[in-house]
Amino acid sequence: MTPILHSVSALKPFLKKEKPSRVCIVTSKKVLPHVRWAVQTLKKLKPTAILVPDGEKAKQWHVLEKLLKDFSHRGLDRESIVVILGGGTVGDLAGFAASIYMRGIRYVQIPTTLVAQVDSAHGGKTGIDFLGAKNQVGAFYPANAIVIDHRFIKSLSKSQIVDGLGEIIKYGLIKDPSILALLAQETVRSIQKSPKLASIIEQSIRVKDFYTSSDFKEQKGRIVLNFGHTYGHAIELKYGVSHGYAVLIGMLAELQLGEKLGITPIFVRKNLLAFLDKLGIDVGGAFKFDARLLDHDKKVKGKAIVLPVIVREGQAKLVAISTRRLKELLSNI
Amino acid sequence: MTPILHSVSALKPFLKKEKPSRVCIVTSKKVLPHVRWAVQTLKKLKPTAILVPDGEKAKQWHVLEKLLKDFSHRGLDRESIVVILGGGTVGDLAGFAASIYMRGIRYVQIPTTLVAQVDSAHGGKTGIDFLGAKNQVGAFYPANAIVIDHRFIKSLSKSQIVDGLGEIIKYGLIKDPSILALLAQETVRSIQKSPKLASIIEQSIRVKDFYTSSDFKEQKGRIVLNFGHTYGHAIELKYGVSHGYAVLIGMLAELQLGEKLGITPIFVRKNLLAFLDKLGIDVGGAFKFDARLLDHDKKVKGKAIVLPVIVREGQAKLVAISTRRLKELLSNI
Repeated sequence: MTPILHSVSALKPFLKKEKPSRVCIVTSKKVLPHVRWAVQTLKKLKPTAILVPDGEKAKQWHVLEKLLKDFSHRGLDRESIVVILGGGTVGDLAGFAASIYMRGIRYVQIPTTLVAQVDSAHGGKTGIDFLGAKNQVGAFYPANAIVIDHRFIKSLSKSQIVDGLGEIIKYGLIKDPSILALLAQETVRSIQKSPKLASIIEQSIRVKDFYTSSDFKEQKGRIVLNFGHTYGHAIELKYGVSHGYAVLIGMLAELQLGEKLGITPIFVRKNLLAFLDKLGIDVGGAFKFDARLLDHDKKVKGKAIVLPVIVREGQAKLVAISTRRLKELLSNI
Repeated sequence: MTPILHSVSALKPFLKKEKPSRVCIVTSKKVLPHVRWAVQTLKKLKPTAILVPDGEKAKQWHVLEKLLKDFSHRGLDRESIVVILGGGTVGDLAGFAASIYMRGIRYVQIPTTLVAQVDSAHGGKTGIDFLGAKNQVGAFYPANAIVIDHRFIKSLSKSQIVDGLGEIIKYGLIKDPSILALLAQETVRSIQKSPKLASIIEQSIRVKDFYTSSDFKEQKGRIVLNFGHTYGHAIELKYGVSHGYAVLIGMLAELQLGEKLGITPIFVRKNLLAFLDKLGIDVGGAFKFDARLLDHDKKVKGKAIVLPVIVREGQAKLVAISTRRLKELLSNI
């Protein structure tokens, strides 16, 4: 199990104990102004620093190549440690680079966005997009430590909070309804300063860990975490909306799918819509599903796909469905 | 432990049991004419086939990119299996591609050269060269099965046999002198048809497995397998000689290093020279060591390196030495 540290300061003694030959911070130009205090905290370790692009622009083949070259030019060897400061995309890119540089060196994730703190930094999934398909190339390669520092959440924009809420609400729907209860009195604006923030993040990570540690390589149980992601990924690719927002849209669509399959009671979706409205999240956009994008989805196995479907708030089950029927059903939502 | 199958025919029932969504054979133009019979054997599985370059030309960043694109264009998904027919370089490239495609899919190694059968196909090391440094980018990712079929050995050239003998003799020196005894009555030309070939290969694999299974990620014990490889890699890079031949040259140089350190008795090297002469292997070339190439050697950890040094035939020990002293000593050999 990857240790979780609760502040950037706690990383200093951790790194000292690991005795790296060199510490290399990877972050982005966009993130840097917000995280200078964290870089400053690590100054005594004499880190070298590399800037990469941000957003999905980071997760490209040629960016990966450039980062590996930078690792080499900065003299990183097998005993070096990469410290990644950024959101999910920077973490996915740099974690993947660490996983294949010299056949894998140690790395630490310091997620700076809400969605990265509750989701992408955990579970060891790294990777880049390839030929227009998300995470088509990558590795399962867990970080040696993850730092969850709430100070980063304070500087986030409203849309970055919504991005994180997508995954947090998913955890509530598939496993732990008490997360939804914690959110019930909040709005998108109030969460950043809410005394409940720590509990919301902690319980979210617990759900993520439950599925990823029991099944690290995503053969069975981990599939539950894909709830909202099949429809969501296609929307994210086509419209360029944020991951968490796409997952929100994806969950609403996949709840409808569950209704069509006779598994999900209709009030789950009605409740969710009211809940999102109270939080102040607008999900009224007109998105059109492009079934062809499913052909590049890693989750699609040959002619059939296994999908998580919600039975009730806090409980999901896995359902096998033919790719053809899935496309047909989703296209009519 | 990766299962070893003893003929290409035995792969058919193995693959049927694994139920791949698709079988994709990766081989090279150079290898293909010699392995058509093997491809024919797998015909009923309706494989798709991809040709990659051979030799170190295979182990390049842009070749990796092309192969991943080919995987995608052929419609490989997470349930597909890659079957690699070729020598070590094709195996390293395609094994690495399988390890990162969709965060890792299953693959089978069918090594077609002697060196790949006894060395590179085992232990899960995959990778490519990068910025002129060997295996700078790669993954530890074991095959799901390895096929050791002696029929491939019959079509090899003399230099390909020498290539394999480099590693085989290394196994004798570091761990199992009975391998050297099996080779004692052979010449490079006689081995291909020798009734002892099966035992030589089997015992070699046993030594390799001993070190790789006890220590998969090469932290400690596996370092013994690097004997001859520090000097050897630099020679291989500079002169473009085959890997196994470079290891032979490297072992002679590192035996001398062991003598200078007061660890290796001088008769080990004298015996080895006589042994190689009897086999018909010429090691008389004038190679000059380029110490700068060590700076890109993954084995060099910061300011010091841990080297295997031969104590006697069949026994090695690990010695820590500063990079500076190592360069100095090797430059004077």
